[in-house]
Amino acid sequence: MNATRTGSSKQQKLSGNGALAAAVSDTRMLPIRNRRALKLRDDLLAVEEPLEIRVRGTSVAVTMRTPGHDDELAAGFLLTEGLIRDRGDVTAIAHCPAAAQPNNTLNVHLAPSVEVDMARLTRHVFASSSCGLCGKASIDSVHQHFPPVASKARVRADVLVRLPDALRRAQATFDRTGGLHAAALFDTRGRLIVLREDVGRHNAVDKVIGHGFLQGLLPFDGILLVSGRASFEILQKALAARVPMVCAVSAPSSLAVRFADESNQTLVGFLRRNRMNVYAHPERIRNA
Amino acid sequence: MNATRTGSSKQQKLSGNGALAAAVSDTRMLPIRNRRALKLRDDLLAVEEPLEIRVRGTSVAVTMRTPGHDDELAAGFLLTEGLIRDRGDVTAIAHCPAAAQPNNTLNVHLAPSVEVDMARLTRHVFASSSCGLCGKASIDSVHQHFPPVASKARVRADVLVRLPDALRRAQATFDRTGGLHAAALFDTRGRLIVLREDVGRHNAVDKVIGHGFLQGLLPFDGILLVSGRASFEILQKALAARVPMVCAVSAPSSLAVRFADESNQTLVGFLRRNRMNVYAHPERIRNA
Repeated sequence: MNATRTGSSKQQKLSGNGALAAAVSDTRMLPIRNRRALKLRDDLLAVEEPLEIRVRGTSVAVTMRTPGHDDELAAGFLLTEGLIRDRGDVTAIAHCPAAAQPNNTLNVHLAPSVEVDMARLTRHVFASSSCGLCGKASIDSVHQHFPPVASKARVRADVLVRLPDALRRAQATFDRTGGLHAAALFDTRGRLIVLREDVGRHNAVDKVIGHGFLQGLLPFDGILLVSGRASFEILQKALAARVPMVCAVSAPSSLAVRFADESNQTLVGFLRRNRMNVYAHPERIRNA
Repeated sequence: MNATRTGSSKQQKLSGNGALAAAVSDTRMLPIRNRRALKLRDDLLAVEEPLEIRVRGTSVAVTMRTPGHDDELAAGFLLTEGLIRDRGDVTAIAHCPAAAQPNNTLNVHLAPSVEVDMARLTRHVFASSSCGLCGKASIDSVHQHFPPVASKARVRADVLVRLPDALRRAQATFDRTGGLHAAALFDTRGRLIVLREDVGRHNAVDKVIGHGFLQGLLPFDGILLVSGRASFEILQKALAARVPMVCAVSAPSSLAVRFADESNQTLVGFLRRNRMNVYAHPERIRNA
């Protein structure tokens, strides 16, 4: 369940002309108990709720996410943060029955041999180093844990340009809410492996990577497609899953381009309307 | 300087037909030193670099941001995280000459009377509580520090529907990069107070709020407009600046709607093409 009805909210469609004014007046006159009667076409919202991720019972992160595939989100998050590496590291991922909100609390059980390095939790957190940071330092820091990929995968350009349509066709809720980011893994022949949606684009990427991790599909020698922009963090997550090709429907950032270049990752942006911009390592893209 | 030329990258425009194939071949044949010759129309990228924020010399956060207005970003971040409250709390915001990357390191100097509560740094961080979390708990937690607004501000619907155009007109770089989120403050008559762009939408919001803070404009009894979606965190930041009306060009999340409802904030989504959806507190929107 990725969307919720907002019959209980005061949602209304208005327009900027006379009809709008009337609609506003109507809203004011409606008693609270009749709000449900205002339900209109766009009355589905992307659900956003906090998920607490625990490792061996210790809380390590809270992320605002769209519920669903939480086990994949937790696995993908821990993999891309460098806390886990192999499928065998994880023995179980389970909700915490004793938590106040069991559905929003996940505990990740690890094999006894796994040493948890909490210092690897670098995402969105306080800087522990006192050195100044620059893009180069950020890239080097990632490469210490996740070296550049050495994939020899190739993909046909005409396969790439068809991926956004495949993504949209598979997005069950997007057209209804307009509020979800999507991420997907494709193989090099353009076949969809997994698609996930979330209010947070990083979460959508964590989910598809977590899916790959839990299904034993990593290293994934294919393509990650994201519905929005490609940031440094998206490239970093792809590298953690050993994905050699990252495509974005919208623009990459400058640091994403540098990161892809130095990580031997192909980076495609503005993949839409049968066109693309190639920002890094175009040698993997073949003529049709 | 919000955008960078990518003449040194391998950026190319390709299309999904025969011309595309040719373009790919051309890329392969081009020697590295001639990459600059590939510069094309879309050759501006949104810059993304890490900014380290220090408070009294102690590093408290690193955020990936588009350089520019870093002082506003730092002030907005600290305000919305609850570490500072009044303009007088901040005595200076300055780059750290001794840091390895002075331009990416800011130190915020506080008045001696200000007690820094590092526990307030709740953004994207490890959960320190072991209790389960739900939306209600998240909202209550915010309200402990930032109570609901009590604004009596009103705005005309025809003013609201013109805001997105005003935003786009003011966005100097958006059309060129496609990679920047925008946030803006407007007064209730639709006059633009400040616009900021960033690769991170939270950063863009922090910047406009930080601008308001540093210019003595808070509490801001007007409108926050964001170019994308409205999440829980966007509403929370607006509440910290006491902004009673939040408008988004795209969709809100379910928790954003709940938060706005309980915070006495007007929440408008899908504000585009002369239309809008009102999700919370429509009583502030007046007929033209």
